[in-house]
Amino acid sequence: MQRGKLIVVSAPSGCGKGTILKEILKDPKFYYSVSATTRKPREGEQDGVHYRFLERADFEERIRADAFLEYAEYCGNYYGTLSAPIEEQRNAGRHVILEIEVQGAMQIRKLCPDAVFVFIAPPSPEVLRERLTGRGTESPDVIEARVAQAEKELSCKEAYDYCIINDVLADAIADLRAIVRSEELKIEKMD
Amino acid sequence: MQRGKLIVVSAPSGCGKGTILKEILKDPKFYYSVSATTRKPREGEQDGVHYRFLERADFEERIRADAFLEYAEYCGNYYGTLSAPIEEQRNAGRHVILEIEVQGAMQIRKLCPDAVFVFIAPPSPEVLRERLTGRGTESPDVIEARVAQAEKELSCKEAYDYCIINDVLADAIADLRAIVRSEELKIEKMD
Repeated sequence: MQRGKLIVVSAPSGCGKGTILKEILKDPKFYYSVSATTRKPREGEQDGVHYRFLERADFEERIRADAFLEYAEYCGNYYGTLSAPIEEQRNAGRHVILEIEVQGAMQIRKLCPDAVFVFIAPPSPEVLRERLTGRGTESPDVIEARVAQAEKELSCKEAYDYCIINDVLADAIADLRAIVRSEELKIEKMD
Repeated sequence: MQRGKLIVVSAPSGCGKGTILKEILKDPKFYYSVSATTRKPREGEQDGVHYRFLERADFEERIRADAFLEYAEYCGNYYGTLSAPIEEQRNAGRHVILEIEVQGAMQIRKLCPDAVFVFIAPPSPEVLRERLTGRGTESPDVIEARVAQAEKELSCKEAYDYCIINDVLADAIADLRAIVRSEELKIEKMD
């Protein structure tokens, strides 16, 4: 059996990454890597589904034990990716999807040179602005800040292996499947 | 417009490469690179379809003019791949399929580091033997020689980027499409 791939996916907010991944994850060949955090669960958040919720002492113990592929501290809380579940799933032949922002992705690039890095981008800043406006949940100021943030993140896409433009959703899903399939067909090189 | 890819395809005889490529080439996004040769046309062979038939003096003139991506001499005849049509098609955004044996492929690897190398393999030597026997056109000796040759060529597959096992034809065609699509989605790296 072929070892599963580690597929690292990043996208600016509003690019439809969630919808694409939801569809991909219907296939049991894929496993979604759940982040660990010391942040308290919000209403409706389930342990092991939205996050793996850990006590601070437990998280720090695992940092010392080198159990994280990457971790960072934001606003007083730790967030990180535990290595063991990823290894287990990959060894069982499943592809692991790791949804992470650009900086975390770059940390993983160094540690897992065999990971596959996919960036999902909006067709244009205008389309992104329309989509965020269409949600009707954000103020114009917040939308502009998100568009500016997206453009900043887009400038990092050169560090990824592949870029999917999410214009038509079904095409973007097919593109991600094509990338994974082609990675399965790749001949392992001795470097 | 994105520049088309150069897709170099090799396969031992009997792997179904012809059938796969015929299907792929129905899409006008692809262009089949026709080899040039000094061999005389056989019955039914058309210039520009099966081969580009050239006079020996003309072929040698083009060698001197560095017009070939690769060329070789077999049994007193030249065979080669002209660069210009490939460049034109790629610049027009079409993917060029270059069907070539292992040694020619390795020559191209050196000259076109951006080419994509795909090896098509039989599921097993046994299946290959069955397929060749099924054709009913070859003697058992010839079949065994072909199977031995295929195993020799298979040992070269490490030099390729991708390997498609042609077990179920429709899957093999989908695999080649997935490879080409993923190559379209690849982010160009500054080396």
